[in-house]
Amino acid sequence: MAGLSIFGIQGLPEITSGTDLAVSIHSAARDSGTALESGDILVITSKIVSKAEGRVVKMDDVAVSPFARQYAERTEKDPAIVELVLQESKRVVRQVGPIMITETRHGFICANAGIDQSSSGGHGLAVLLPVDPDASCARIRAALKQLGLDIAVIISDTFGRPWREAQTDVAIGIAGMQPVTSYIGQVDPHGHEFRVQALCTADELAGAAELVKGNLSRVPAAVIRGLPWEPDETANMQSIIRDSERDLFR
Amino acid sequence: MAGLSIFGIQGLPEITSGTDLAVSIHSAARDSGTALESGDILVITSKIVSKAEGRVVKMDDVAVSPFARQYAERTEKDPAIVELVLQESKRVVRQVGPIMITETRHGFICANAGIDQSSSGGHGLAVLLPVDPDASCARIRAALKQLGLDIAVIISDTFGRPWREAQTDVAIGIAGMQPVTSYIGQVDPHGHEFRVQALCTADELAGAAELVKGNLSRVPAAVIRGLPWEPDETANMQSIIRDSERDLFR
Repeated sequence: MAGLSIFGIQGLPEITSGTDLAVSIHSAARDSGTALESGDILVITSKIVSKAEGRVVKMDDVAVSPFARQYAERTEKDPAIVELVLQESKRVVRQVGPIMITETRHGFICANAGIDQSSSGGHGLAVLLPVDPDASCARIRAALKQLGLDIAVIISDTFGRPWREAQTDVAIGIAGMQPVTSYIGQVDPHGHEFRVQALCTADELAGAAELVKGNLSRVPAAVIRGLPWEPDETANMQSIIRDSERDLFR
Repeated sequence: MAGLSIFGIQGLPEITSGTDLAVSIHSAARDSGTALESGDILVITSKIVSKAEGRVVKMDDVAVSPFARQYAERTEKDPAIVELVLQESKRVVRQVGPIMITETRHGFICANAGIDQSSSGGHGLAVLLPVDPDASCARIRAALKQLGLDIAVIISDTFGRPWREAQTDVAIGIAGMQPVTSYIGQVDPHGHEFRVQALCTADELAGAAELVKGNLSRVPAAVIRGLPWEPDETANMQSIIRDSERDLFR
């Protein structure tokens, strides 16, 4: 039966600042009988990357600017969170009541600049997105290469989207494979060009990995095996960030 | 190795009006050595459902209204396509140059009301979305039940999205399982409530299935095996269509 298999990596330790993620994931996968293999695609939840990179902030330590304080009063949000969201963002795309949709410094558009307050291993902490998720992926891919493995790496986060309820996991960083599969210029068996010109494989992989990671169990990494990909060290997520001039919904 | 497996169903015949999809898919799966099993989730590309349901229109037969003709002149689109898009839509959400983003009569927001002109098995044909994709799923699920199989059914289509380049497959119809997995009120191992409150499992399944279906090969149906789901005959996609009053981007 050709096809994909997707499995979560069980038994990862609690990740803290300085944890070597490549080594931890490699060991946990091996010890749980699902050793990584060259050709795999590894999807890692952004939160553990942030934790490993020390992107955890004590809410009490946040110096709230007068502007953020005013903004917080107007929106009934925690002033420290407003401060962090503004620091992490290029601009506010929509703000209604306590909902802040911003464009992060990376160019992603999401609620609260992707900051996670809910399950950061202790009250009063906020987990920020990695500073450069593509670079984080490249580092993990390089470390796995040193262990003899050629593995594509994706960092995922859970984003909402307009028009449709509930969220899905999407890619915010990638290394080793291009995030988009292009069909431009290709034809179907009847000789017709495709309506679909490009698929965001990275987002589909991130969503597929979520199916096994879940949010309740502590399985922040998953492997997708059986999908062919072309190694490409120039890959990053910038190619899927739509220029605001091409965007109809900003 | 616990986890999911995902595989395409090879060897489906060309689908035409009146084809019994449940029987065709069941036979093709069995004949290619990947017989369907109870507990599977079957993801079917909308185009073959449309074809089976006779939702194919000859462009030459479309009676173009004066309004559509005017609209087409202004937007440099084919008048017959503009007529079909308007017929299939409740309203136009954005229109810039030849790009028409509309809300379909089902409530989905997508380009050209989901109409496919590109690879409909002949020039001058347009494939419209199924009239009621949830009902189509329910019929296929019921037919598979008659063959002794308890299978959840999803119809997928390829949609663009704001802010991010390239498209992904999402669900437009479902039967047998709820499209959303809710975490509201649940807590993580540390006792904290989740930031993520609801995941659109149906969209993640549709995207995961696209990874094996591809767009070049003629594999319009895929199976996801190994994901537990709760049989629920009340399931449909209406629960994921966001009310326009709750939507910040319309």
